[in-house]
Amino acid sequence: MAYRVGIFGATGAVGQELLRLLIERNFPATSIRLFASARSAGKTVAIGDKTWTIEEATEDRFGELDLALVSVSGGFSTEMAPKAVAQGCVVIDNSSAWRMDPNVPLVVPEINASALVEHQGIIANPNCSTAITLMGLYPLHQAFGVKRMTVATYQAVSGSGVKGMEELESQVRAWAADEPIIAKTYPHQIAFNVFPHVDVFYEDGYTKEEHKLLNESRKIMGHGSLAVSTTCVRIPVMRAHSVAVNAEFERPVDLGIAREAIKAFPGVQLVDNPSANGYPMPLSCAGKNDCEVGRLRKDMAFENGIAFWVVGDQILKGAALNAVQIAEALHEADLVRVPV
Amino acid sequence: MAYRVGIFGATGAVGQELLRLLIERNFPATSIRLFASARSAGKTVAIGDKTWTIEEATEDRFGELDLALVSVSGGFSTEMAPKAVAQGCVVIDNSSAWRMDPNVPLVVPEINASALVEHQGIIANPNCSTAITLMGLYPLHQAFGVKRMTVATYQAVSGSGVKGMEELESQVRAWAADEPIIAKTYPHQIAFNVFPHVDVFYEDGYTKEEHKLLNESRKIMGHGSLAVSTTCVRIPVMRAHSVAVNAEFERPVDLGIAREAIKAFPGVQLVDNPSANGYPMPLSCAGKNDCEVGRLRKDMAFENGIAFWVVGDQILKGAALNAVQIAEALHEADLVRVPV
Repeated sequence: MAYRVGIFGATGAVGQELLRLLIERNFPATSIRLFASARSAGKTVAIGDKTWTIEEATEDRFGELDLALVSVSGGFSTEMAPKAVAQGCVVIDNSSAWRMDPNVPLVVPEINASALVEHQGIIANPNCSTAITLMGLYPLHQAFGVKRMTVATYQAVSGSGVKGMEELESQVRAWAADEPIIAKTYPHQIAFNVFPHVDVFYEDGYTKEEHKLLNESRKIMGHGSLAVSTTCVRIPVMRAHSVAVNAEFERPVDLGIAREAIKAFPGVQLVDNPSANGYPMPLSCAGKNDCEVGRLRKDMAFENGIAFWVVGDQILKGAALNAVQIAEALHEADLVRVPV
Repeated sequence: MAYRVGIFGATGAVGQELLRLLIERNFPATSIRLFASARSAGKTVAIGDKTWTIEEATEDRFGELDLALVSVSGGFSTEMAPKAVAQGCVVIDNSSAWRMDPNVPLVVPEINASALVEHQGIIANPNCSTAITLMGLYPLHQAFGVKRMTVATYQAVSGSGVKGMEELESQVRAWAADEPIIAKTYPHQIAFNVFPHVDVFYEDGYTKEEHKLLNESRKIMGHGSLAVSTTCVRIPVMRAHSVAVNAEFERPVDLGIAREAIKAFPGVQLVDNPSANGYPMPLSCAGKNDCEVGRLRKDMAFENGIAFWVVGDQILKGAALNAVQIAEALHEADLVRVPV
């Protein structure tokens, strides 16, 4: 089988990586078409000697596609995804719009590819911090059974797309040139600063991003009683997210078993050699498919606890790579079709 | 009473603030002398129209002083502090050398100034992250009784002194000029990067900095059973440390009481207005004496838990300000003298 594939949000940071990954990983596509807003229609994108012209994303295009990889605003996804499915097009959606819908599988393929079997046409790609955190947590959960965890994130500006990266870059350049620093994308200067504010605030004092860590982790892991308390923080780093995790498990933990579990898990690498200054870092994970896990140690606050540090490229495992992996898993299981 | 005061490590980031604070806060000094390594001797430092000439720090100088504020390497402090005391000079030491010595009070004046009464000549100034964390935690501990906590730090390069700040600045300038980025002070590039590595690693996988959070918190709070699991992370911010804390308490928590406790505590400000993007940040705390506490919310992982975010200037409350406050507390209690 091969598919007519569309990328929606093709001009974005995630959209660009979606195209690159589909080609690099030889996804079985008879065609790949790029869609974006009317403003970007007509622009071209080139990879190697191949060029694509961006088309306007309108709802009647979905009937010409078997599979749509959608990385646009939640509003667009909410409205368009059911129309795509009605036209026979399977949607892998990167927004938060459909993630908690009980009829929509929310998938990290290394963890719960089996959930794809029941898809009704829409499959949700998880929140970036959640996907990266779970790549470190899940192998430990398999070994010891996680009960609860506290999480602190160190999130790159790529999480806000191209405009986040441009904002950090322009602020740093302004600083170096002794010019005024202007904040447009974020409510505060991000260069040489951090703020505990990613996505909108809820009444309970948590952000939507922090709630995602709880709700999406439970759904992906099929673990409804997992307790998660998170602080999400934006930091002046370009494109990989780092996460400090303290997790408590049901069963006694063993660091040797924990290390082996990380090593054996696909999509993660154990980088844990402190005596040689070896630990995961955003700079070493940027542009890399695998997440890195390190700083594994017995937790000093939780009984049966492990503390660790996990880093992953926000645009890759946190978004585009995971979406393409979902597409690959759908293909392998012959699930690139809307159930009748 | 007024005292002959010496600042050791006068050329460092902390040393410079010590001088400024002693003058600004009118510490009762008959004289203030500045000491540093032989390399810096003869250099001058000016504040307003007053100029100081730096003298070489040698052990026979302590006999000419009543009070020494020492911010140099732990090795110097280990060797010199007892000699200073033997010459009748009280030492407030900013290194980690004496902090856990049972005969040395480890003091954050807002928390345990009473411990100064038993000093034997040496008083230790706490680790910067510990002091800042406890400024947020202690008022909550007074209200609810803390049992354990997980801590993730976001530590500015000022924690490595002037050379840390110079390293970040030079790397960012090199990046802006498209020149090679060179790491000298840190094992890895810090510009646009973070690493979970502050101070040296121990066999158990934790860093010395992470152990300080546990040991020094227990000693300052007089709370030997407190459990603390910490991840200390260096980030590309100039001079204020941020800390994400998840704390579990003995008694049921109430956010209204928690807010009042923070507001009533000296040296901290409640900055907790998420709907107006109001929360503590390094940029708003740099150069500020008070620490800021915000993002107060019920913890989702700990029963009777509170999550919060605290930020403080590493050079001020994390070092120089706390040392000068210790000096002030000693003066007020007539304790600027070595007990016979």
